[in-house]
Amino acid sequence: MKRDVDNLLRERGLSAALVIKGEIPNFTFRYLVGPPAAHLSTGILVWKAGQTPHLVHGMMERDSAAATGFERSDFGAHGFRKMMEEEGSRDAAMARLLAKVLSDMNVRGPVLVHGTADVGRYYHVLNRLRSLAPQIEIAQDEDLGLFELARATKDPEEIAAVRTVAAACGRAYERIRSVIGGGHLEGTKLKDAEGWVTVGRLRREVRRVFFEANLEEPHGNIIAMGRDAGVPHNQGDDAAVLEEGRPIVIDLYPAQSGGGYYFDVTRTLCVGRAPAELSELHATVREAVQRTVDGLAPEAPARMYQEKVCDFFESKGHRTIRQDERLEEGYIHGLGHGIGLEVHERPNLGGIPQNRDRLSPGTLFTIEPGLYYPSRQLGIRIEDVVYARPDGTFENLTPVPYDLEVAPASS
Amino acid sequence: MKRDVDNLLRERGLSAALVIKGEIPNFTFRYLVGPPAAHLSTGILVWKAGQTPHLVHGMMERDSAAATGFERSDFGAHGFRKMMEEEGSRDAAMARLLAKVLSDMNVRGPVLVHGTADVGRYYHVLNRLRSLAPQIEIAQDEDLGLFELARATKDPEEIAAVRTVAAACGRAYERIRSVIGGGHLEGTKLKDAEGWVTVGRLRREVRRVFFEANLEEPHGNIIAMGRDAGVPHNQGDDAAVLEEGRPIVIDLYPAQSGGGYYFDVTRTLCVGRAPAELSELHATVREAVQRTVDGLAPEAPARMYQEKVCDFFESKGHRTIRQDERLEEGYIHGLGHGIGLEVHERPNLGGIPQNRDRLSPGTLFTIEPGLYYPSRQLGIRIEDVVYARPDGTFENLTPVPYDLEVAPASS
Repeated sequence: MKRDVDNLLRERGLSAALVIKGEIPNFTFRYLVGPPAAHLSTGILVWKAGQTPHLVHGMMERDSAAATGFERSDFGAHGFRKMMEEEGSRDAAMARLLAKVLSDMNVRGPVLVHGTADVGRYYHVLNRLRSLAPQIEIAQDEDLGLFELARATKDPEEIAAVRTVAAACGRAYERIRSVIGGGHLEGTKLKDAEGWVTVGRLRREVRRVFFEANLEEPHGNIIAMGRDAGVPHNQGDDAAVLEEGRPIVIDLYPAQSGGGYYFDVTRTLCVGRAPAELSELHATVREAVQRTVDGLAPEAPARMYQEKVCDFFESKGHRTIRQDERLEEGYIHGLGHGIGLEVHERPNLGGIPQNRDRLSPGTLFTIEPGLYYPSRQLGIRIEDVVYARPDGTFENLTPVPYDLEVAPASS
Repeated sequence: MKRDVDNLLRERGLSAALVIKGEIPNFTFRYLVGPPAAHLSTGILVWKAGQTPHLVHGMMERDSAAATGFERSDFGAHGFRKMMEEEGSRDAAMARLLAKVLSDMNVRGPVLVHGTADVGRYYHVLNRLRSLAPQIEIAQDEDLGLFELARATKDPEEIAAVRTVAAACGRAYERIRSVIGGGHLEGTKLKDAEGWVTVGRLRREVRRVFFEANLEEPHGNIIAMGRDAGVPHNQGDDAAVLEEGRPIVIDLYPAQSGGGYYFDVTRTLCVGRAPAELSELHATVREAVQRTVDGLAPEAPARMYQEKVCDFFESKGHRTIRQDERLEEGYIHGLGHGIGLEVHERPNLGGIPQNRDRLSPGTLFTIEPGLYYPSRQLGIRIEDVVYARPDGTFENLTPVPYDLEVAPASS
């Protein structure tokens, strides 16, 4: 939570955090600044424990900067243009500006630098900063980063935002089921009044639902049938016509427009009756979700649930990623991930054995086992989002039924 | 252009470019990879002059990686998970992976590193890489970066993509004019069958036009009236009801969904009759655009046009940013910027006197002078996009009329 940032800085022995915002999204900047961040195209934030943060901003964004409630100064007040003229280079001028701002704020010792920008350029900017400001060090963040840790536990208003996105996802799946239910089979293929029902048609329907909810899909979505369902990140072929009895993996991960909160949910559907092999795989994955949800405990190590799901799938005769990191068939990925302002946050319910992430109260994370057999045109994934409530209980936030089969209209 | 990358690597004495893609957008990765990049959430691209690029990708994205046509290997083939287990840290493992990939590809000497990720973490990753791979150096990019320079000149298919976005912007302004034209004044305020016509209403209309054109607005837009029009990056107040005779700055910068091309256009409108002061300011800004467009010459220094516009505005009694970098009233920003996969690219038609960007054939850039007097509730900006054609002529790609006044229905 945001109020943890000061304590984490102290615990980790850091004098300050220096958060740099360029035109590329910086979700930690957004987190620390709040909604006014949407109107700040660039900025430098100096965060010292126990003090009002200081924001350096552009003059054209002075009103948005004022809305943050932070202390502030504009680039011009530091003579940034003169620095650029003297240096003849943005990078050298940026190093001077950072050195001046840190010096003005009397920062000494280890500084956590966080910015999303070109890492090659900033390698040299930060080297230059070190020579200009020998009183500071550029701290090495821990594997579980300070801001990753703070952001992993959500405030109630963050959960409220996520719930609104969850509700829109529920409507998107309702819409998909209603389109399939309103079609009829011609041979094995689905058709309705608009023509053949394709993957692209479903994607357009989803896009419209999210448009109406003021959401966007910065990373797209997955609507993948048959073999595509068997390769987890294949987004699916818009031209493919829905066919009876084939798995359709539908993974939706929209966010609030303008840089807000994500939701992430997957269901696997099938038009009409599912073959026995598909039904059985679906039931196995469904059981893996249920076993995980039933076994959740506050502060439990997140990695443990990945082990348990691997145990379960292996007991059913499936190969798993812990046996072979290059596996293409079976259970080939991690169990889940935190979610918030980014679609993938901490805790990580997968990864390596050394992963020490925990399901602390306040965390919000996905549980998304899957089984993949592209050689047999099969893939199943089911994904829910669970909230570890402050009272130690867990709440499944996913308002979407699990049913595999969706019956078309009788023709 | 993309075909320039190899020559630029040779001219700048670089052995290779190392382009790192994490989950944050990397527009150079997108540029080099093309549309399949939309389905690669992570990747490492090694680009050596005259060779097929090599892509390291995740196993779950093997089909998307194959679609690039590059040579490729998956993270598992390099033993990345084992590296993480041995190091117990993503950063240390990433340094080892980068060192191994560069060594496998026999890269020695200066390497241009380009990635959009956390610059603080990568400062340490790259330091560790240097110690693991002493045969390479991390090159310092020039102020006009190698990829910035390549991307500044557009291929014909890039221009074709931009034209489709331009056309949708044209429809968005038509829609705005039609909403205003369909309203009537009650007192000084605009109303129609849906109620008071607000800034938020216009924003919704624009969003719908872009939705229907499969565009998105990653940076939002500006629809700013009165004082807000006078602070260039104020996005405007959704609750404000349109009022007769006040300037409304409308700056739209949508992009193709899924990480495609931008357009960027600004018009200043006014409901009903404009006061003389507003009309005069508008005519002055309109003249600044026209003078600039009329004076364009191939290979001309981009900064020169900023000087000329400052000359012109100063001759009309306005103060300009070259007189004071902290200016709040008058002409307070640069004249324009390149546009493409990002809303702000090179060339830069502003900046510092040392700016050596040129309007080379193939460049695509905005011309967007403005005058701002927030203390008088006034702001005007007009922005066109111009294409420097390979034949040495210039084409204005902006299909939007300049007219300031939009008459509501007579009530």
